[in-house]
Amino acid sequence: MTNSNGSTTSFFGTNKPHALRSIINSNELAFLMEAHDALSALIAERSGFPGIWASGLSISTALGVRDANEASWTDVVDVVERMADVTRIPILVDGDSGFGNFNNARRVSRKLCERGVAGICLEDKHFPKMNSFVGDRHPLADIDEFCGRLQAVRDGVPDPDFVIVARIEALIAGHGQKEALRRAAAYSDAGADAILIHSRQKTADEILDFAKAWDNRRPLVIVPTKYFKTPVEKYRAAGVSTVIWANHNMRASVAAMQALCDQVKKDESVANIEADIAPLDTVFDLLGYSELSAAEKSYLPTASVGQDRL
Amino acid sequence: MTNSNGSTTSFFGTNKPHALRSIINSNELAFLMEAHDALSALIAERSGFPGIWASGLSISTALGVRDANEASWTDVVDVVERMADVTRIPILVDGDSGFGNFNNARRVSRKLCERGVAGICLEDKHFPKMNSFVGDRHPLADIDEFCGRLQAVRDGVPDPDFVIVARIEALIAGHGQKEALRRAAAYSDAGADAILIHSRQKTADEILDFAKAWDNRRPLVIVPTKYFKTPVEKYRAAGVSTVIWANHNMRASVAAMQALCDQVKKDESVANIEADIAPLDTVFDLLGYSELSAAEKSYLPTASVGQDRL
Amino acid sequence: MTNSNGSTTSFFGTNKPHALRSIINSNELAFLMEAHDALSALIAERSGFPGIWASGLSISTALGVRDANEASWTDVVDVVERMADVTRIPILVDGDSGFGNFNNARRVSRKLCERGVAGICLEDKHFPKMNSFVGDRHPLADIDEFCGRLQAVRDGVPDPDFVIVARIEALIAGHGQKEALRRAAAYSDAGADAILIHSRQKTADEILDFAKAWDNRRPLVIVPTKYFKTPVEKYRAAGVSTVIWANHNMRASVAAMQALCDQVKKDESVANIEADIAPLDTVFDLLGYSELSAAEKSYLPTASVGQDRL
Amino acid sequence: MTNSNGSTTSFFGTNKPHALRSIINSNELAFLMEAHDALSALIAERSGFPGIWASGLSISTALGVRDANEASWTDVVDVVERMADVTRIPILVDGDSGFGNFNNARRVSRKLCERGVAGICLEDKHFPKMNSFVGDRHPLADIDEFCGRLQAVRDGVPDPDFVIVARIEALIAGHGQKEALRRAAAYSDAGADAILIHSRQKTADEILDFAKAWDNRRPLVIVPTKYFKTPVEKYRAAGVSTVIWANHNMRASVAAMQALCDQVKKDESVANIEADIAPLDTVFDLLGYSELSAAEKSYLPTASVGQDRL
Repeated sequence: MTNSNGSTTSFFGTNKPHALRSIINSNELAFLMEAHDALSALIAERSGFPGIWASGLSISTALGVRDANEASWTDVVDVVERMADVTRIPILVDGDSGFGNFNNARRVSRKLCERGVAGICLEDKHFPKMNSFVGDRHPLADIDEFCGRLQAVRDGVPDPDFVIVARIEALIAGHGQKEALRRAAAYSDAGADAILIHSRQKTADEILDFAKAWDNRRPLVIVPTKYFKTPVEKYRAAGVSTVIWANHNMRASVAAMQALCDQVKKDESVANIEADIAPLDTVFDLLGYSELSAAEKSYLPTASVGQDRL
Repeated sequence: MTNSNGSTTSFFGTNKPHALRSIINSNELAFLMEAHDALSALIAERSGFPGIWASGLSISTALGVRDANEASWTDVVDVVERMADVTRIPILVDGDSGFGNFNNARRVSRKLCERGVAGICLEDKHFPKMNSFVGDRHPLADIDEFCGRLQAVRDGVPDPDFVIVARIEALIAGHGQKEALRRAAAYSDAGADAILIHSRQKTADEILDFAKAWDNRRPLVIVPTKYFKTPVEKYRAAGVSTVIWANHNMRASVAAMQALCDQVKKDESVANIEADIAPLDTVFDLLGYSELSAAEKSYLPTASVGQDRL
Repeated sequence: MTNSNGSTTSFFGTNKPHALRSIINSNELAFLMEAHDALSALIAERSGFPGIWASGLSISTALGVRDANEASWTDVVDVVERMADVTRIPILVDGDSGFGNFNNARRVSRKLCERGVAGICLEDKHFPKMNSFVGDRHPLADIDEFCGRLQAVRDGVPDPDFVIVARIEALIAGHGQKEALRRAAAYSDAGADAILIHSRQKTADEILDFAKAWDNRRPLVIVPTKYFKTPVEKYRAAGVSTVIWANHNMRASVAAMQALCDQVKKDESVANIEADIAPLDTVFDLLGYSELSAAEKSYLPTASVGQDRL
Repeated sequence: MTNSNGSTTSFFGTNKPHALRSIINSNELAFLMEAHDALSALIAERSGFPGIWASGLSISTALGVRDANEASWTDVVDVVERMADVTRIPILVDGDSGFGNFNNARRVSRKLCERGVAGICLEDKHFPKMNSFVGDRHPLADIDEFCGRLQAVRDGVPDPDFVIVARIEALIAGHGQKEALRRAAAYSDAGADAILIHSRQKTADEILDFAKAWDNRRPLVIVPTKYFKTPVEKYRAAGVSTVIWANHNMRASVAAMQALCDQVKKDESVANIEADIAPLDTVFDLLGYSELSAAEKSYLPTASVGQDRL
């Protein structure tokens, strides 16, 4: 296996939508790790995660913009394509509210599917969206209108295995379980393959209540960013399908770079931190440089390999 | 000050080429920190570095490709624009060999200058390039041809302060000091504002020898990735202008993400690492979310701010 | 003068926003010609038009998508940058409804301004928009909300001369003169430099009525696509500032390519049409190939110009 | 059938590489028409051409740059993707010299294949290339090195049906038939599916001589831009596989836009040209606006279709 762009058949070689569908539908609790660029995706794959969450917040942050649809939908497609190009595990993309109406939602979904993405998560809010952890009582989408978005995506993607996750913001917006359940049912009927029930409480109580009432009519996906202390066994017991670690690679890298920059600025030297950072050989290994060396031997005339034209 | 894209006049507000020129020409030793995306650029700026090195290796790595011109030149321009958009300190871009001949080199330089970049570093190799730490005896460019590239960039950029650094690969390619000095002199005459003398030895000896012989005919830039143990005082004594920490943010983030992914995979929980990674509020602060909240108050009708259309 | 990318300082050499502002504010009736790519922009400039209309419909059509915000805002910025790179006359960009809320509108405007665009036209509709000639009674934006968009653009662009044209869809949406005038007044107060009053009637009557009632409180821009038969003297008499020929280059090229393709398909030969199409030398002249030849002489070592390495 | 982006499964629905392979290998003389953007591709398809030539010269011209690799390879991929998205007939892309060495050539070919392109044409020159009709005696690539490029593409594309056409510049560079035939044989052995023999003479003599000597060891492709007067029957008799009309859509559109702009500038009116240009309904039909109207009925809540929120 190689992760390089040189010789991996990223898109044709495996059926990533099918793989994600299996993860979502399986009875085993699965974990997706966030990635925000090709490098973090490679690392998540190497650690053994079965799939990747392409986080809107993390991708926006890496791009230097805010999680309020400041990046264009094609910006996001470009980033995610690079992630899909270097990994074999399936990627679920945070599609925000779908970048507009049903027509924009189906267009971005089709492009993502063509780029080797396995599925999209759409949330029942408006365009432009605001990050769920910023501000209060964001307006929710009309249920019928949002169901139209889901159906258009369902009908519009070229691969029937492409996974659609409907994300419900009703709890965060303060509308309670009944509204959340009503929406979950409607979105399931409209073609969602799974329901992501979102919460920003510090405990998992409302999530577990929802899970119980929902009774696995469709697989349940959760994002324990705020209620991270809850032991994972509770999710297993509740029949949750998939847990998303939604922004942790990005936050680990922020902390590491801040610490490094502060110390190197102070020390005027990298000698003290050299042992703590990845050696270049790790980078060359992750990116498959050996494939390129081998290819030079195959495809360059013998005289040119390592030749010096000086 | 705000780093947000909302209200910072990234390009028009400051003269970044002029600022980089001052750094390069000053008698004080200066340090540039590597960045590979807008986020790492923000962090480098916050730590107090006076300028940023937009590393070809690091940008390639983040994009999931190899440092062999697998990314197109417009891919690189796009990444660097995002870095320039969110920072006020000048950015020196690793322009590899200039992405082709003189015409390609002036074209990418012009676009970088338009995007708010302060300068470009061009190395005397061919297109496509290979990373200087991979393989042996890469062919060097013909001196006259490379001087033509430098002159075309000098004549082609719209801002006369735009900085051109000529990077000499003669030592790494095994041609010795005499060839390196001959090239440095030719490149200075052709319009280079500074000379980057590159080495992959584990000590700074050949760099210090070069500095002595060169005698500051133009400012000297060095990249102590391999010879990182040399105390910085030696560079001050040798009259070096600028030290580039060329890939350390990227390598810090690789190590941090690998450690995080391994542990979260094993733990099936983020509880143990939550304290070690950046809180979301740090991210919101870095990206200027408060500017967006303030702007909503200014520009959205009162009824719409925080309104719920449900 | 050269139009080539090789040596023209597209952005820094001239003040395009100032030039467009002068056109809009002058007492003489001016005409802008549509362009949808760099080539059509070059041709419009060569014919002597003082400015270019970067039409949303035409750009969408050239890109193969529908005028319903199927192209992302960055797609549009990319196209328009290419137009600005090769021309010296100012470009007014059809910004549709601003690609979202005030934050999206100011972000796209800032990027356009950085790319050398002279001004943006924003219409008082929602995102995603639908072409004004397709369908009926498109919903209009709330006046206060749209004024917020205009103010955010005014405050957000780095060049104070950047022109903001507010396009009023009230007549097309069937709301009548009173509503159109109310909106024109509000948009002027919010920072619009000119009012574009749009109509899809086959005569100019409602446009002329509006002009009379508006009494040039701000310059008036019109788009006589449907009411093309009205003699231009009527607009002069009415004090109209600027007429936009909104899609004619694109439609001319569609007709020409359809005719060519049909005939060449039938003839199995290009001999009959060779005299009717532009010779390659015209193309080379438009794109400034002579600048490249001259630059090769300046920047390539003598031995390499025209050299054969075989 | 619809050409819209809304509902056409552009990539998955048909096997375009297989279709192009059939055209190339068939005993019937086939004709490819040039396109340079999605719109011209749509028109070529509508006229009944079985395939499209995505011309480097024409695409460069539309983008406002010169045919000397001033556009990046990703710029070209973006343009061609849009062409593939709206058409069902196969596209053969003018890949110049492959944008660098074997590694760049296989990378661009893989991306093109993923984007729904049917094949690539690579010419035996260096990067950056110069248009074959500009300047003299361009250096040719070393045969072994160029064969390495072809083999790398063959091994690197995910679809084995992807067509590789090797373009021989030996006649234009003045090396004669023997060298051209030697190269044709080597390139066939290295994996080329067809040979494009290029000439800039005003008669087809050297092309017909080559065809006779080559004796159809692989299918032959020709580009009668300069020797356009030769009757097509001569090519049939010579057993030529495919004729490319290489830049005619672009040149037709240049002539039409120049004429239109000149007249509209002079007339200060479009009344005299309205009958000669395509009506908007033709544009709406080409782009599939009816699909969007139908989709609105399917996916928008009834109340929203044509609703006015004023």
